[in-house]
Amino acid sequence: MAPERPLIDTDSDDDDNILDLGQESVYNRRRSRNEPTDYNIPAVADADADPAFNLDSRSKETSQYESLDYDVCENVLWRREQTKIKPKFTVRKDFSRWVISLQIGVCTALVACCINIVIEEVSRLKYGFLKQQVDENVLRGDLSIPYLYWSLLNLIPVVIGATLVAYVEPVAAGSGIPQVKCYLNGVKVPRIVRIKTLAVKAVGVATSVIGGLAGGKEGPMIHSGAVIAAGISQGKSTTFRRDLKILQHFRDDHEKRDFVVGGAAAGVAAAFGAPIGGILFSLEEAASFWNQSLIWRTFFASIISSFTLNLILSAYHGGSSFHYRGLFNLGEFAPLPFEYFELPIFMLMGVIGGCSGALWNAANSRINMFRAHALKQRWAKVLEAAFIAVLGATFACVMIYTINDCRPLGNDPTEHPVQLFCQDNEYNAAAALWFQTPEATVKALFHDPPGSHQILTLAAFVLIYYPLSCVTYGLSVSLGIFIPTLLIGAAWGRLMASFTVLAFPASSAFVSPGKYALIGAAAQLGGVVRMTLSLSVILLETTGNIGFILPIMLTLMTAKWSGDYFNEGIYDIQIRTSRVPMLPWHVEPEYQNLSARHVMARPVVCVRLEEKVQYLMDILKNTSHNGFPVIEDGDDGTRVNGRLIGLILRSQLVVILKHSYYQESSRFWESTVSIETFRDAYPRYPAVEDLHVNAHKRSGKFSVNMEMFMNPSPYSVEEGTSVPRIFQLFRALGLRHLVVVSSENRVRGIITRKDFLKHH
Amino acid sequence: MAPERPLIDTDSDDDDNILDLGQESVYNRRRSRNEPTDYNIPAVADADADPAFNLDSRSKETSQYESLDYDVCENVLWRREQTKIKPKFTVRKDFSRWVISLQIGVCTALVACCINIVIEEVSRLKYGFLKQQVDENVLRGDLSIPYLYWSLLNLIPVVIGATLVAYVEPVAAGSGIPQVKCYLNGVKVPRIVRIKTLAVKAVGVATSVIGGLAGGKEGPMIHSGAVIAAGISQGKSTTFRRDLKILQHFRDDHEKRDFVVGGAAAGVAAAFGAPIGGILFSLEEAASFWNQSLIWRTFFASIISSFTLNLILSAYHGGSSFHYRGLFNLGEFAPLPFEYFELPIFMLMGVIGGCSGALWNAANSRINMFRAHALKQRWAKVLEAAFIAVLGATFACVMIYTINDCRPLGNDPTEHPVQLFCQDNEYNAAAALWFQTPEATVKALFHDPPGSHQILTLAAFVLIYYPLSCVTYGLSVSLGIFIPTLLIGAAWGRLMASFTVLAFPASSAFVSPGKYALIGAAAQLGGVVRMTLSLSVILLETTGNIGFILPIMLTLMTAKWSGDYFNEGIYDIQIRTSRVPMLPWHVEPEYQNLSARHVMARPVVCVRLEEKVQYLMDILKNTSHNGFPVIEDGDDGTRVNGRLIGLILRSQLVVILKHSYYQESSRFWESTVSIETFRDAYPRYPAVEDLHVNAHKRSGKFSVNMEMFMNPSPYSVEEGTSVPRIFQLFRALGLRHLVVVSSENRVRGIITRKDFLKHH
Repeated sequence: MAPERPLIDTDSDDDDNILDLGQESVYNRRRSRNEPTDYNIPAVADADADPAFNLDSRSKETSQYESLDYDVCENVLWRREQTKIKPKFTVRKDFSRWVISLQIGVCTALVACCINIVIEEVSRLKYGFLKQQVDENVLRGDLSIPYLYWSLLNLIPVVIGATLVAYVEPVAAGSGIPQVKCYLNGVKVPRIVRIKTLAVKAVGVATSVIGGLAGGKEGPMIHSGAVIAAGISQGKSTTFRRDLKILQHFRDDHEKRDFVVGGAAAGVAAAFGAPIGGILFSLEEAASFWNQSLIWRTFFASIISSFTLNLILSAYHGGSSFHYRGLFNLGEFAPLPFEYFELPIFMLMGVIGGCSGALWNAANSRINMFRAHALKQRWAKVLEAAFIAVLGATFACVMIYTINDCRPLGNDPTEHPVQLFCQDNEYNAAAALWFQTPEATVKALFHDPPGSHQILTLAAFVLIYYPLSCVTYGLSVSLGIFIPTLLIGAAWGRLMASFTVLAFPASSAFVSPGKYALIGAAAQLGGVVRMTLSLSVILLETTGNIGFILPIMLTLMTAKWSGDYFNEGIYDIQIRTSRVPMLPWHVEPEYQNLSARHVMARPVVCVRLEEKVQYLMDILKNTSHNGFPVIEDGDDGTRVNGRLIGLILRSQLVVILKHSYYQESSRFWESTVSIETFRDAYPRYPAVEDLHVNAHKRSGKFSVNMEMFMNPSPYSVEEGTSVPRIFQLFRALGLRHLVVVSSENRVRGIITRKDFLKHH
Repeated sequence: MAPERPLIDTDSDDDDNILDLGQESVYNRRRSRNEPTDYNIPAVADADADPAFNLDSRSKETSQYESLDYDVCENVLWRREQTKIKPKFTVRKDFSRWVISLQIGVCTALVACCINIVIEEVSRLKYGFLKQQVDENVLRGDLSIPYLYWSLLNLIPVVIGATLVAYVEPVAAGSGIPQVKCYLNGVKVPRIVRIKTLAVKAVGVATSVIGGLAGGKEGPMIHSGAVIAAGISQGKSTTFRRDLKILQHFRDDHEKRDFVVGGAAAGVAAAFGAPIGGILFSLEEAASFWNQSLIWRTFFASIISSFTLNLILSAYHGGSSFHYRGLFNLGEFAPLPFEYFELPIFMLMGVIGGCSGALWNAANSRINMFRAHALKQRWAKVLEAAFIAVLGATFACVMIYTINDCRPLGNDPTEHPVQLFCQDNEYNAAAALWFQTPEATVKALFHDPPGSHQILTLAAFVLIYYPLSCVTYGLSVSLGIFIPTLLIGAAWGRLMASFTVLAFPASSAFVSPGKYALIGAAAQLGGVVRMTLSLSVILLETTGNIGFILPIMLTLMTAKWSGDYFNEGIYDIQIRTSRVPMLPWHVEPEYQNLSARHVMARPVVCVRLEEKVQYLMDILKNTSHNGFPVIEDGDDGTRVNGRLIGLILRSQLVVILKHSYYQESSRFWESTVSIETFRDAYPRYPAVEDLHVNAHKRSGKFSVNMEMFMNPSPYSVEEGTSVPRIFQLFRALGLRHLVVVSSENRVRGIITRKDFLKHH
């Protein structure tokens, strides 16, 4: 056995750096602390012992998140296939992309319709029954019976949903938007695009909304669209163990992600009837990977999704023309005129929304941090969800029973006007807010005529719903935050309109409560999620009122700016706390003046063009790296300081070993090996532990020739390249590995997306 | 003097290519034909003779178009400045970006307003006068007087505009959208963003529209926005020889282009009142260079532009609320209901629009090709414009005088209803189409009640306007094609509605002429310009009718698809015929299986880290290359086969030589040289011819050390890298030069954007 020695002498890279920024040593020291100094790997390949590898602590920490390989590996197998491809095939492939986009649109809409119809029908039954109970029991003066019924009707669906999420697929919790954001950014969140996740999500959303939780079904629709896209585009399902033997050419991360972009957009289109908003949503999240044909396909999927949904829901509701552009629409607004002296008021509301949103975000993230610590057991999560469900019913009952906001019947928007303690021809406006799904309440707040609610009712509603939604988001249930946020914003917007009219009675000429509810909703939403462009368009498309775009934009931008002063948007907070290595838009300031050599990981585990099976098994088992530079023989025939000639991925090595593509076999396999073999294994490659290479094969005689498999032109940079420049390369190309080389093209280090992130 | 020999032995790169595709030789042969084989440059630097350089014929051909340096040159000077930058400065810089965006929005709107008001007022006078003339002369039975007046009133402004364009700034001709597209794509079209261009453009547009040419002011607004952005962001004007000594940090191609993106969007926002459409326009053209903060600033500029315009025009017209979102809006549509069996009709209209648009494009490009051949003199161009202006008046008069389409007065939208041969309480509907600006006619076609026009009137109008607009676009005047295209589309759309009602009288219940005019306009526009996404949004925002988005999208997509079957969009045709090296979205199929070595230009003129002044002067004078790889000494101390260590630009070398930053001067200048020197010279660097280096300095003793100036980490690829991969790199990073190196990092060739384009 050869003597162990460091793969790369750490002193060797003190070469002539033109501009020594003085930070190198600091960063290197910090880095060295993370990496044990005795990080040694067998310097020659025929080491037969199993050396105790010291893994890079950083890569373990986030090993559950891998990057997507957006970069196509153009190895010999790939090129060989390319040369065989006829123009006809290219046309067919392009055509199938369109067909898949069509299917994505249709399927997303179908799922949305199912969820919607179930929620609508069951909610109607639920609130009809509750109204009846209230009506019966209020005469008897005993309101505990309806309260109990209400709690029970909240409890049962929520427990079902929470159990599903907690026990079957925890990743289906929440809105799914942060996960989709990560995926679009290039991080593979495990299990996020599986059919099982979709199933749990769909059932979970329906149960949560039926259970009266403070949440909506819109966010989850975006996630559903993404799952559908990933599923349809692959022509196989791992959950069902089915392979339709079609669309094999789309089985790589690049194609899959492009479809997921379309799926997310189709989801937005279905949720809000906002096809343009859908594109902008995907754009705002994944702006760096666009090209025109992708834009058009995404656009197509969005239109189809919105159209299909419209068709089905219109048919279901028996209408002939299209009124149901999305699951959720804010209802037809009459033209909303505004005076330009109102613009400062809208901006002020933007500031309020921004601050209130920032507070909501801060509180919610605290609660979720506590939750992550305190509630680790699954049953505890279910219990918590159940508790919140009952809490909601309790608050609602207390509010309804105590506030006596009676309004004459006739202009009540709810299907189940509750009389409660009111006169015979009156209904309780407070109850009206609660006796329907949150969506319907939002619409009511936008469209109810002025004076439909007492100030007290609205204030109490905001005070209850704000903390309620804050504790709800983060429960182990599938739920979005668009609707509750809109609801809170609409309520305080309406409240502001009332106050304004009270303070300046002359202003009643132009202060319409619906308009202020809309601005409030936009402000609150902007303050919580901070997506200006896509939200503007979504709200625009949802209200159907183009003339009102300026106030909405202004409000959203001021909300974003004031919120950003305090913290990030809720999705970004979630992503940060779950330590996903998502690339930000710009490199962090601390990295501004550093070079590749300061951030790169080293020493690098390299492989030679011809590599012993034993060594490959060793590095696969003992490191968690996903990419290995392929080098020419370095100094003294070792792997030290070799010239970079390629890059091979862990997934490729695993497949190679599994299929015994060894050199020794005198190339009999050359004719049979094709890129198909690798594609078939995508995306769930065998684990190293499942590879059984017998001792004979492990002996020195067998080796793998990387020539056919490796990416022969991996992106590499010279070690003096500045970090912002490298960052740009990562963002623009969606890189996974970037090899750092010396000016003689010798491997010096490797950079992955984690290396740009402070907290890693 | 050293013996001359080839810089790189062309046989030397026949190294081990894993996959020989058999095309290398073909391509190399083709390439060799272009490049004379006796391409020799002095192999040692102290050659004092002026060798006869044989220039690369390819680079001469397109030398008028340079690439933008989107890639920031991070040389020592830049890094030195970076280390001095305080966080406060970064914040201030970011803040000034927002302020500039604000100014861009405001100024774009101001320019738009001026143009608009001038056009409106003068047109009102013009058509008022003409109406009066017609009214007076029709009684006398002699209609030649008004015809002569009309011709004259068309002739005078058009001649003024055409003279300005032809003699002062030819680049201001046309809509400017193709040029803006090129700029966003990364090609510097000479003089395209100068103040002088803007001035000519503004006056030119006003005169052309007043002169009654078949064109609009919308396209030019986009160009104006781009010029304004480029001007404001630089803090200096070369036209006025003023340097405000501010914003020096934005004086590079990268920052400038980012602002131009905002300016173009602001232009769209001002032209159509479509801020979202503006962003999508910029996105559709420059999708690969986006990041979130750029999106937001662009968005901001668009809103401000639309808002300012609204404010000014509302004030001008004396209204208090905002009705003038853009220069052009299609007027308030009543909600446009549609039945789903109409969708196939819309798609059919999309197909018609696509074919008709493709025909228009084909005819227009033929005409322009003929024009480029036959009309080379400036006076000929002016004459041609004058001829077309009179031709327009002639056609209009013939149509008005012969078609007797009398309608009762009362619902005539034009300000100047002409009675002509009609009864006393009637007006001539054919005259109504002509007696106003094209914008107003478009609106009339959308909103006139059913039956406002005879079928004959509309058909004659289409038959006249279609060829008229076709010959007009390409004249030496500033004009856009949005309005004439919309006009043609609206006319045949209305015509189709009439036919449909005639054929199926039952269909009159849902076939409203305004709706079909809108669909026809969308179809025609989609067929001519082929921008689906941004056009949908622009039309959506202009009509203010969200519910109608699905029909518009469907129409635009079918129009695009059917048009694409025949040819490209008009802007792309223009770009292609003017041989601008614009990067397409995907690499052309012929390049699919090639590698860097097949497309790269070679031999490469390299410079050494320390280079003699004489040699630098020689390469600057005798080549037209814009970038030179910096190499370590190669074999035998020559410039052959050296290792790549940097890249220096022609512009940098010129500044270095101008300021005599020579090594010999024993570094006394080291303290004074800073990146400011280079920035001050931006963007119009001195010409090589203006450099006067005396014989003493040219002697062997003086040399330049590139260390401080060169980009120390230029992007490079190994020569086996596939072309699609390199193309991706170019698109994603906005590269200008990409050095091709061997596996030992020795310079083998260089790739610029021209190398991807077949026709170069």
